Amino acid sequence: MSSAVFRKSSEAALFSDPTSLRYLTGARFTSGTALVSPTRKILLVDGRYLFKARRILGRKWHVLKTPRDQSAVPAQIKSLGIRRLYIDTEMITAARYRSLLESMNNGIQLFEARGLADRIRSVKRPEELAAIREAVRRTDVIWARLHLHLRIGMTERDILNYIKQEAHRLGAEEMSFEPIVASGPETAEPHAEASDKKIRGDEPLMVDMGIRLGGYCSDFTRTVFLLRRRRRPPAWFTAFWREVLAIQNLAYGLLSRGEREPKVIARKIAIRIRRKRLGRYYLHGLGHGVGLNIHEEPYMTEKGPRLKNGMVFTVEPGLYRAGRGGVRIEDMACINRDRLEILTQSPKELIWRI
Amino acid sequence: MSSAVFRKSSEAALFSDPTSLRYLTGARFTSGTALVSPTRKILLVDGRYLFKARRILGRKWHVLKTPRDQSAVPAQIKSLGIRRLYIDTEMITAARYRSLLESMNNGIQLFEARGLADRIRSVKRPEELAAIREAVRRTDVIWARLHLHLRIGMTERDILNYIKQEAHRLGAEEMSFEPIVASGPETAEPHAEASDKKIRGDEPLMVDMGIRLGGYCSDFTRTVFLLRRRRRPPAWFTAFWREVLAIQNLAYGLLSRGEREPKVIARKIAIRIRRKRLGRYYLHGLGHGVGLNIHEEPYMTEKGPRLKNGMVFTVEPGLYRAGRGGVRIEDMACINRDRLEILTQSPKELIWRI
Repeated sequence: MSSAVFRKSSEAALFSDPTSLRYLTGARFTSGTALVSPTRKILLVDGRYLFKARRILGRKWHVLKTPRDQSAVPAQIKSLGIRRLYIDTEMITAARYRSLLESMNNGIQLFEARGLADRIRSVKRPEELAAIREAVRRTDVIWARLHLHLRIGMTERDILNYIKQEAHRLGAEEMSFEPIVASGPETAEPHAEASDKKIRGDEPLMVDMGIRLGGYCSDFTRTVFLLRRRRRPPAWFTAFWREVLAIQNLAYGLLSRGEREPKVIARKIAIRIRRKRLGRYYLHGLGHGVGLNIHEEPYMTEKGPRLKNGMVFTVEPGLYRAGRGGVRIEDMACINRDRLEILTQSPKELIWRI
Repeated sequence: MSSAVFRKSSEAALFSDPTSLRYLTGARFTSGTALVSPTRKILLVDGRYLFKARRILGRKWHVLKTPRDQSAVPAQIKSLGIRRLYIDTEMITAARYRSLLESMNNGIQLFEARGLADRIRSVKRPEELAAIREAVRRTDVIWARLHLHLRIGMTERDILNYIKQEAHRLGAEEMSFEPIVASGPETAEPHAEASDKKIRGDEPLMVDMGIRLGGYCSDFTRTVFLLRRRRRPPAWFTAFWREVLAIQNLAYGLLSRGEREPKVIARKIAIRIRRKRLGRYYLHGLGHGVGLNIHEEPYMTEKGPRLKNGMVFTVEPGLYRAGRGGVRIEDMACINRDRLEILTQSPKELIWRI
């Protein structure tokens, strides 16, 4: 964080959510309080993390012990000489914020810095971008392996388990979310859960998955038609698939020509959707930022922030028709050296023969 | 939730965190708002979840669509005729609570119900207890398999990967947290991270792991001395190990004789620790509740609530000496039909020969 945020050394920002703690320290803490000022970095952790924090951060951070329920934090903040405290109200519970407010009224001013943590993390440093790039690359590998592995008679859950197993083999820390594996009419649900339904072919397959590598997430979706006895996919699927790709390419075209306002992109897509009378099938926004969290800034919606170098986001239009099925195609992309860079490399295929 | 909480049908409680949504509906939603009243259950979800929610919950819940940023929720609450709204301030961000407050001032009263969600979930229904019991049982299986699998020369990370692989084979949804695998002096850190350090024997091994099954978590720790060339573990390890077990048995004795106040148990342990002059090695509390979250009520501390039938918690004393090593032994237990039941079945062994 730039020290320009602060005016004096008696000012600091407080972060206590695990994502911010990981971002600031590089290490994992399920609880703790970081106080960051132009002159100091202070970490308050309970006994579970004390040795670890001192060993990892000892030279860069001032590590202090605090009770696990964090009740002593206000008194410690005071004794550290902090007089103005910035708190991101999106990253703290209302109850904890209330407690801080109540115990702080003697001589410490609290400032709401809504969205500060997400805003700081939205611009990725080169090493963060490298971690994300590698997570995306390995996700592409999983998809390619799934293509070779997929067989008639496997269940959605078998596919889910295969994805998890390959992610693990490829060194993923964990899945960045529970993968979505949907086939047939279930693809009409943007967030379907894998079931024991068997893959029988001549139906769509939608896979939405991501891994976490060194803390950083990937996010990926492809929808293919599993062609078995039919000569070609049904007309509705092909139409949906082409339209989804067209929307994605519309966004890429705008981004490539320098458009950096998510709201402008969202509006141009909305115009196209309206013109084609697809409004009731277009159920969600274009995308979201990805980093230490699977969903973070920049949101690719009417309210999203102007895109900057170092921002990483998904581009994932989808069309869904209840009872019939849906199509979503999701890449990860970033703005790098003033250019759009599409990180996801997997091919976009209409058909997998099975 | 008992409808006795409410006085009128114009009252409702609002829940919007994924854990509460899973608890109330049985399904996974990364975002959404549930409004629960004596007469109605209303779920507001965005387009990603609309079909899914209607399909799964259609007969039990009134499912309505809302924009993903939840900005329309206050207006929808008003139009539903709700006039008194209870919100658990521990389960909502300060920013979102502030937004609700600001948009609610016309005719809707907001009440802080701090800790409501955790309190409701702290008493498990029989089917929840069954899910936890099964998660604990499979965790015991992983530990038994690790005993057979462990070899000199494996790294901590190899052990971590083995645990994850076995968890996956046993049908776990995911790990309930990133497992802790520590050997040698690293066991002195209550929350060590697995490294590429090789197991060489004649050193302690600490494994803290848990799985998630049907949403419900398990939590488990054992510390053993890996005996190779030595005739017996060093005196400090044996002393720590015996003392940790003695503390655990002190807690079990109190619980078995009907003690239900965590603070009484915590105090009796504190007296023993002080008498034995082990204060600076006893770094964390006795335990915590486990359920849909890995850490939840009842916390087994000075501030923990009186234990009731259906409450599930860990009993995990630990002693840690920086530079040397530590011991933690963790079981899961519950109060069932007025009796203490220890769920974890794995043996507590001082030594594994390797």
